[in-house]
Formats: sequence, C-alpha cells, structure tokens
Amino acid sequence: MRSLLLSRRDLDFLLHEWLDVGTLTARERYAEHDRATFDDVLDLAEQVATEHFAPHRKLSDSSEPTFDGESVTLPDEVHAALEVFGQTGIVGAALDSRVGGMQLPAVVAQACFAWFHAANIGTAAYPFLTIAAANLLLTHGSREQVDTWVRPMVEGRYFGTMCLSEPQAGSSLADVTTRAEPRDDGTYRLHGTKMWISGGDHELSDNIVHLVLARIPGSPAGTKGISLFVVPRWLENGERNDVVLAGLNHKMGYRGTVNTLLNFGEGKHAPGGEAGAVGYRVGEPDTGLASMFHMMNEARVGVGAGATALGYAGYLHALDYARTRPQGRPAGAKDPSSPQVPIIEHADVRRMLLASKSYVEGALALNLYCGKLLDDERTAPDAGDRARAHLLLEMLTPIAKSWPSQWCLRANDLAIQIHGGYGYTREYDVEQLYRDNRLNAIHEGTHGIQGLDLLGRKVVMSGGAGLELLVSTLSRTVQAARKAGGEAAEHAEGLDAAVRRVAEVTETLRGAGDPAVTLANSSVYLEAVGHVVVAWVWLEQLLAVGDADGAFYDGKRAAARYFHRYELPAVHPQLDLLASLDRTTLDARDDWF
Amino acid sequence: MRSLLLSRRDLDFLLHEWLDVGTLTARERYAEHDRATFDDVLDLAEQVATEHFAPHRKLSDSSEPTFDGESVTLPDEVHAALEVFGQTGIVGAALDSRVGGMQLPAVVAQACFAWFHAANIGTAAYPFLTIAAANLLLTHGSREQVDTWVRPMVEGRYFGTMCLSEPQAGSSLADVTTRAEPRDDGTYRLHGTKMWISGGDHELSDNIVHLVLARIPGSPAGTKGISLFVVPRWLENGERNDVVLAGLNHKMGYRGTVNTLLNFGEGKHAPGGEAGAVGYRVGEPDTGLASMFHMMNEARVGVGAGATALGYAGYLHALDYARTRPQGRPAGAKDPSSPQVPIIEHADVRRMLLASKSYVEGALALNLYCGKLLDDERTAPDAGDRARAHLLLEMLTPIAKSWPSQWCLRANDLAIQIHGGYGYTREYDVEQLYRDNRLNAIHEGTHGIQGLDLLGRKVVMSGGAGLELLVSTLSRTVQAARKAGGEAAEHAEGLDAAVRRVAEVTETLRGAGDPAVTLANSSVYLEAVGHVVVAWVWLEQLLAVGDADGAFYDGKRAAARYFHRYELPAVHPQLDLLASLDRTTLDARDDWF
Repeated sequence: MRSLLLSRRDLDFLLHEWLDVGTLTARERYAEHDRATFDDVLDLAEQVATEHFAPHRKLSDSSEPTFDGESVTLPDEVHAALEVFGQTGIVGAALDSRVGGMQLPAVVAQACFAWFHAANIGTAAYPFLTIAAANLLLTHGSREQVDTWVRPMVEGRYFGTMCLSEPQAGSSLADVTTRAEPRDDGTYRLHGTKMWISGGDHELSDNIVHLVLARIPGSPAGTKGISLFVVPRWLENGERNDVVLAGLNHKMGYRGTVNTLLNFGEGKHAPGGEAGAVGYRVGEPDTGLASMFHMMNEARVGVGAGATALGYAGYLHALDYARTRPQGRPAGAKDPSSPQVPIIEHADVRRMLLASKSYVEGALALNLYCGKLLDDERTAPDAGDRARAHLLLEMLTPIAKSWPSQWCLRANDLAIQIHGGYGYTREYDVEQLYRDNRLNAIHEGTHGIQGLDLLGRKVVMSGGAGLELLVSTLSRTVQAARKAGGEAAEHAEGLDAAVRRVAEVTETLRGAGDPAVTLANSSVYLEAVGHVVVAWVWLEQLLAVGDADGAFYDGKRAAARYFHRYELPAVHPQLDLLASLDRTTLDARDDWF
Repeated sequence: MRSLLLSRRDLDFLLHEWLDVGTLTARERYAEHDRATFDDVLDLAEQVATEHFAPHRKLSDSSEPTFDGESVTLPDEVHAALEVFGQTGIVGAALDSRVGGMQLPAVVAQACFAWFHAANIGTAAYPFLTIAAANLLLTHGSREQVDTWVRPMVEGRYFGTMCLSEPQAGSSLADVTTRAEPRDDGTYRLHGTKMWISGGDHELSDNIVHLVLARIPGSPAGTKGISLFVVPRWLENGERNDVVLAGLNHKMGYRGTVNTLLNFGEGKHAPGGEAGAVGYRVGEPDTGLASMFHMMNEARVGVGAGATALGYAGYLHALDYARTRPQGRPAGAKDPSSPQVPIIEHADVRRMLLASKSYVEGALALNLYCGKLLDDERTAPDAGDRARAHLLLEMLTPIAKSWPSQWCLRANDLAIQIHGGYGYTREYDVEQLYRDNRLNAIHEGTHGIQGLDLLGRKVVMSGGAGLELLVSTLSRTVQAARKAGGEAAEHAEGLDAAVRRVAEVTETLRGAGDPAVTLANSSVYLEAVGHVVVAWVWLEQLLAVGDADGAFYDGKRAAARYFHRYELPAVHPQLDLLASLDRTTLDARDDWF
C-alpha cells in the first residue's frame, strides 16, 4: 500500500541530494554512522508510524481522553503504540550515546520524527514532549538529574512535560506566580496552578517529569525572577508527589494528547506530610526562563515540523483522492455520454495540488535545513561556521514555527476542498488533519508572538547581524542560480528583488523612531519574510535538481515555478505596507469596534 | 446583555443610511410597509434568534442527529426553536401575501434571516431550505402545487429540501441518473439515490417536500435531459412515499443540520403497491436544471449570507474576549509589577480585529446589496433598471457566495487566534463557528465552480455586458468619491486602478484563444475580482458615512482604511499572474505529483 503520510523519495532528495547529510559522518560526533544507519532508522520510523500510529489516528480523535476524577483514560491503542515506540529507542535518536541515545544528526532525527507526526500527532506528542524535556535537562541539569530523569526517558519509561502557562500568564510569562519555597535539604516545595499542560496526567508511563517555571520568594518581579524545577509525578522513594489534575481541556483537534490544568501543592498528597509539590531546581535561581527558552526554540522548530507533517499527510490524501475520484469532463469535452475524468484532470484541482505541494515540500525543506543548522551550530569544525549557524537558526526559528503553521494548514484546507463534501465529513481523514493542525499557530508562542520575536528581538534589537546573515545567505543562492541559468536564473531575479526590498523595508522600520510604529505590523513582516525564505528554499531545491531527468524532478520544477509565480509576488504589497509605516491598527480605538 | 450575534446598529446603517430601503415602500409590492414594520420584524428576528436559537448552538454540535434505522433523533431544543420560528411567520418574510407571506423587500428579509444564521446555523438551515424550495415552487410550480406544498411551508408545517447530488454526480450534474417514469395519471415514479441531502429526514415537520432532479426515460443525455419533481415524504392521501433514509453523513461542523443519503423507490414503502417514489413534475420536461438554477442563484447568495453571519458572530465573540482578557503590557511599558492590559491594547490584536471587521461588515454590505438588487430586478419601476439589476446580480452572485465563504471564515480563524489556547477548546464558541463555516466554500457549488461561473459563464460567454456593467457601477462610485474628497478620494484612486486592471486583464484572458488557458486560473480571477468588489462596497459605505461624527462612524472609516490599505493591494500580483496567461497548473502532469 502507498503510504499517505510522507514521501520517502522527497526525504531522500532533501537529505542527500540537497543537504548532503552523508558528509556529517566525517564529524566526530556522528562517526559511528553512515548512509546505511540513516536509512535504517528512517525505514524503522516509517514502519512503526504506519503500523502502530496511523491506524488509531481516528480513534484518538473520536475517543478523546477522559478523566473520572481519579485518573485519565486513553485508548489501549495509544498505550500499545507508545510501548512499541519506546522499544525502538527513537526517543534518543539525536541524544548522546552516554545517556543511551543513538547520537544521530539532528537533521536525520527530524526526518525520522516527521513520520510519527504525520501518522498520529496526538499520540506522537507524548514522546516528543519527552525529547524536549530530555534535551533541556541534558543541557541545564546536573549530572545526577540527567541520570535520574533523562536515562529513563531515553528508555521510554518516563515521559516529560513543560509547565509554563498559568491562567493569568499565557503569552506573558512575566506574570507567572507559581511559588517555589526552598527547603534546607536543597529541594523546593511548589504551590500554584499550571494551564494547558500537554501530557500532564496519564497512565502511559512509569513517571511524568514536569519541568516547571516558578518563583523563589524574594526573586525579582517579571521574567528575571523565574526559576526552573523538575517536579516528578512520583518521587524516587515511591511516594506520590503533590501534582494534582484539576481538569481537562476539550480541544477542536489534537485530541489524542491529553491537555490538563494541574495544581501543584494543593494538599491532596503532601509528600512526607508536608505541604507543596517537591521540586528540584535546574540550573541557577532566576535563570529558568533562559533555560526554558533554549528548549522553546527547539520546540518551536518542532511545532513547525508537526505542522508540516500534518499538511504533508493531507496533501497526499488529497492527491490520492484526486487521482481516483471521477467527476466532470475537461473544458471543451462536454459530451455527456463520455466517461467522467479523475478530478486531477481539472486545472483548478491541479492548482490546489501544486499549491499544496509547494507548501508542504517547501516547509519540509525548511524544517530539515533548520535541523542541519542545529547540527552545524553544535558540530561544525570551524567556530565561525558554528556561530553563523547559530545566528541563522535564531533568525529562522520564528519562521520555521509560523510559516508551516499557516501554510501547511492551508494545504489541509485545500485537501478538504479537493475532497468536496466528502472532505467535510468525519468518514474521511482530511478534516481531522485540518483540526489537528489548527493548534500549531497557537502553542509555543502564537503567530503574533513569533512576529515580535522576529522583527523586535532578532532583527531590531540584535543590531542587524542576523538580518545581514539571512540576506547574504539568500543572495548567495541568487548568485548560484544566475550562474546555473535557465529557469533557476529566472526565479533568481524575483527572489533577488524581494530580498533587496526586505532589506530596505527593514531599514525603514528600524528608523521609525517609535518602537510601537516599528512593531505595529510585525505579523505582516513575519509573513512576508517567511514567503521570501520559502521561495529561497525552493530555489535551493531547484539548484539541487539541476538538469536531472524524471517525473520526480519535473514535479520539483513545477512546484518551484508555482511558488515563484503564484506566491512570492504577494510579498510586495505586504512590504509596501510595511514601508509606509501605516498606523491604521495602532490608532484604532477600542470604542470604534 | 450585549448580543454577540450581529450588530443591529450596523444593520440599520446599511439598510437606511446606505441602501435607503425606506424608498422601496413607494413600490406597489411593498406599499403595506414602512420603517416601523421593517424595524419590528428585525426586532422579532433578533429576539427569537437570541432566545430560542443561540442557546442550543453548542448542544446541536455535541449532540448531532442520530439514526436508529427507523427515524432521526434531534435534540428537543431544535423542535422547540422551530416551533417558535414557525409561529413568527418569518419563513414567509419575502413571499407573496397571496400565499400567506409578509411580502417584505428581499433586502429586509435577508437582514432578518442573518440573525438566525448567526445564532444557530444548524437549526436555521431547516427553514431556510424551506424558503428556497417555496421560492422555486412559487416561480415554476402550478397553482395547485403552490396551494398544496407552499402554503403549509409558509405556515411552518412542511419543510423543503433540494435533491441534486448523487454519488457519481456532485459538481457534475450532467451525470444525474435518477429515473422518473411517467404514469398515465400524469404523476411519475422515481428510482435513484440522492446524496448530501440536508434536512432529508427528520421528525421536525408534518411533511418533507423534496425537490428532486431526475431523468424521464428518452430524455437527452447531459444537462438538457433533466426534469424537476416534487417528491413529498408523505402523500396527500396520508400514505408514506417511498423515500428512504439510507444513512447520515457525519460532518466537521454544521452538525445540527441532518445530512442524508436518500433512496428513492428502493421498495420499502411502494405507495399503492407500485414500485417507485411518487413524484409530481414541476414545469416542462427537461427544464429542471434551469428551474433549479433559479433557486440555486438565490441559494448561493444565501450561502454567502450564512458565511457572513457566522463570521460576524465570531468577530463579536473575539471582540468581547479582547476587551476583557488581560494579558501582557504595551510595547515600552515593561514594568512587570504594573497591571496587565486587555489584549485589545496590543496592535496585533487590533490588526486581527480590524481585519475581521473589514471582512464581516464588508460581506454583510455585499449580501444586503444583492438583496436590494433582487428587489430591483423584480420591482424597479423602470424596465431598464430591472434588467440592469438582474445582470449585476448575475455577476455578483458567485462573489457573494464565495467571498464571504473565504473571508468570513478567515474572520472565524482570527477569532480563534485572538482567543489563543482558549479559542481552540470546545469550552468557547469560536471553534464551532469556524467548523460550521468551513462548509460554505463547498456546498451549492465549490469555490472552483464559482470561479468558472464568474469567468466562464458570466464574463466570457455572456459577451462582455456583465463586466461592463460591473465596471461602470464601480467607476460611478470612484467618481463620487473623488468629488467627496478627503479619505474617500484617496481610496478612490486605488480602487480605480484596480478596476481598470481587472478590465484589461479580462480582455487578455478573453483573447487567449484557448478556453483551457482562459479558465486555467479562474479561481484566482474570482478572488481578485471579489476583493475589488468588497473594496468598492467599503468605499460606498465611506460615502454613506460622509462627515458624520461618533465612534461608530470612525470605526467604519478605520475598517474602510484597513481594507483599502492592507487588502486591496493584494489583487495586483493576482491580476499580473492572470495577465501572464500562466500555464503552470495546466501543464502539470499527474505523475509529477
């Protein structure tokens, strides 16, 4: 059976023909690997995702987690799939071998994770939250914390969560009020309520390791007084910690992932007879937000990767439907007694398919490029290369998070449209993929937050080096495309004009003299720069295609052409608007609405 | 309590300050009415929608219709609401007084219907399908058919449906195969299966009047051999007709409206012991599709009106949330001990609100304008005015259907985004409004079908008169705005440039020499022309505002400004693409995907 999750051919093209990941094995960290081990883990991921995750995707949606006041119930199929996943060791795909990981390049690990996102994002979220938690503890935790909490995560026995939001503190983490009181033995007791905690309570793992932001009494107000704690559901002595499920959220999609409201230290359990949930501080006091943001950046790229995989699966479902559903006849062949044609024959259906292909394959390429940057920032032999990779990844992170969340969702939307009425029913798969994907523009920082991050923090506050690097990276591809000639050279001119315009407009925004004016339309900036970056990714792919023959390469050419002709030009009105320093939204008064 | 459905203030502005509907009472058909009767029916609609429809919107979603093999069960609240609705006589709001209708102007009736769409589109669909069926029978049915079927509809006792699609014939109605065999008494016996029939089976009304497309044996193949039939669930002699529910579709949204697969003449009932469902032909043989399209055009405007109302309700929910949810602080006021501000203070939230306002108020204005054209095509004193109204309505129908389905859905999407995580949960209202609205780009002709209708049928095939009229209508407003000066004059230049460009590009498309090339990007044409039309509607509103003082008028000015600055410029890249006669989608081959 053809997989309707991802295209392995496309993954292989991106990893090997474009990013040339085989060269990474020359680096010491990856010296144990070669093309065969990369292929094996991708084969394994595809197989486990197809056989153990995809089959219960619908069930996870229709039978969402329930809470009877004591414990959370999830379908048996989720338990079974995660048991198999645990055995694969894929949780540790990119982690150090010293903690039991496979120590694969991040870019290969991401390609591997994408299969699980595409197959069943609701079930996949449990191990992926765990991977994020393990990463954070590996970077900021003590050796003892790593041994105690990370090893069982890699073995698939413990799951992790991130506990940031509170009812009054969502996007505004400065307003976190959860309290962490120090004890003489170096531990803390936490009191507070955390909101929107995915995987916050369940019976899927031996333990749940919560990573919690909280304030130590006496710490400064705002973001500078937040510390990070490990708060396990079960203490090492086997006692139940005082982390209590207060309720579940019922979502539009992504329903397989239990989403919880958690009370810390409400008194139900009180370990050792003392009030508060026991917590262990990670890193120095008051540095919690910085540590969390280290994980958050990877988590944001991960959200984009999830959005991409959901869009990709939707596209493949729509393509399959379009090839097999007969309806109507070509323009000009109106003989009603002639047989109907598959709807892929209609130009408008092909337009929707090409649009989707350009979104999902463009997003996947961007995700993997970010994975490669992650490898480079850690392991490139040259320190300058490492620094550049780090800076470029900083610039691309808000885009890698938000662009797929917007445009691969659009692919899901088009997948419904291609299915017509069928696509709107729960008997087909595409409406669930759409609902699942709608979350991705919200969690780990909304679209608006990503816009402020890109324009405010990364472009304006950082003094220009980030944008300069981005522009020079894109311009290098423009030069190469001009040299290559043909269609690549044609697209190069459009990209070059757009990149120059971004640089100009950024100067205008930077010079606005009032941060409120500079940032008023930062979401528009995010969207415009995102489209420019993806146009670049398509030009990069076109260069990798070269003059290769075959339908696969012709498809890449057509999608690159679609993106450059139908999509990229849309950035100019956006950039013109930004250049005008428009105050319409800024000046609108509450009582005008 | 403030209503979160629609703004009565806005409706009054559009009806009276802009469209001046009071002048319609000078026409004989509406002579019984005055401003007071218009106001009364709008008050009644708001009250009944708020008190009887809105309260069970969520329930209709969570308790969708069930079928136990014998009958369909719907919540009691749906029965109760429709009972109240039947008593209001609003089904007959726009219908002739000779059949018991109120004979209100169509534009006033539409304003009145909008309350029910906004309150609970799932429940409202039953009477609105009935209104469409009544309209069709009033125009094409015999006097006896009107007496037998329409009167009880107006009294709220019978409900109607439209039975067009079949499993193999969705967008392609040429492929309808349901068979209607004539009997000596002038009746027919129908055999076939109809798909996607909303309101196809239920216990909400004394009878269900199906309007069914079918072929009389010997008729030509394709669309020229289709006839229209009334096929009631219950025959006049009290016998059950052979219309049998074969199953329900389970939808992403719009769940309160039962959607059915119906078998006609499968033999379960066999009235009078004879095979087939009894049907009565409406109009002449083989003219069924033309009659149905008469209704379909009004139904398409109605779909757009429903999309608008759902978007409007979403916008008002988001506005309410944005005013009451404290989160974060303004740019430049980072003191973490200062109180948080309501999120409407953030520029990006105001951007989303202004965008939504420009979409939903623009769409509502377009809908009501179409309602006014309906009145003019029927009742304008001058025959030339009637013809022009008819032609302009023909042009605007695909836009009035598709534009709100795209952009008011976008307002629903932004409403989720403004709510953040809360908006993604079923504890809030906006995610359901989104899911409900997603249907509107599909039923009554998909987006792609509307594009072919506009560019293929209305613009190219009709020989140019339609576009000429549209262009001259828009240009007249440009002239008036130039005269008015100020901001209107500024927006006039942008609109004028866009209108001229549409005319130019249309000539290029018309001259392409190959219908496949002309129509390859008809969806893009539909979107571009739609945006130009809504920019015009905003300029019209701005002229109606004049120099009036007050927050309401300032809000209209800001929304007009938003649409002209942020939205209208996006049409130029689309029109440039169309002008290039791009073949990318046309040339893409199946095996490239």
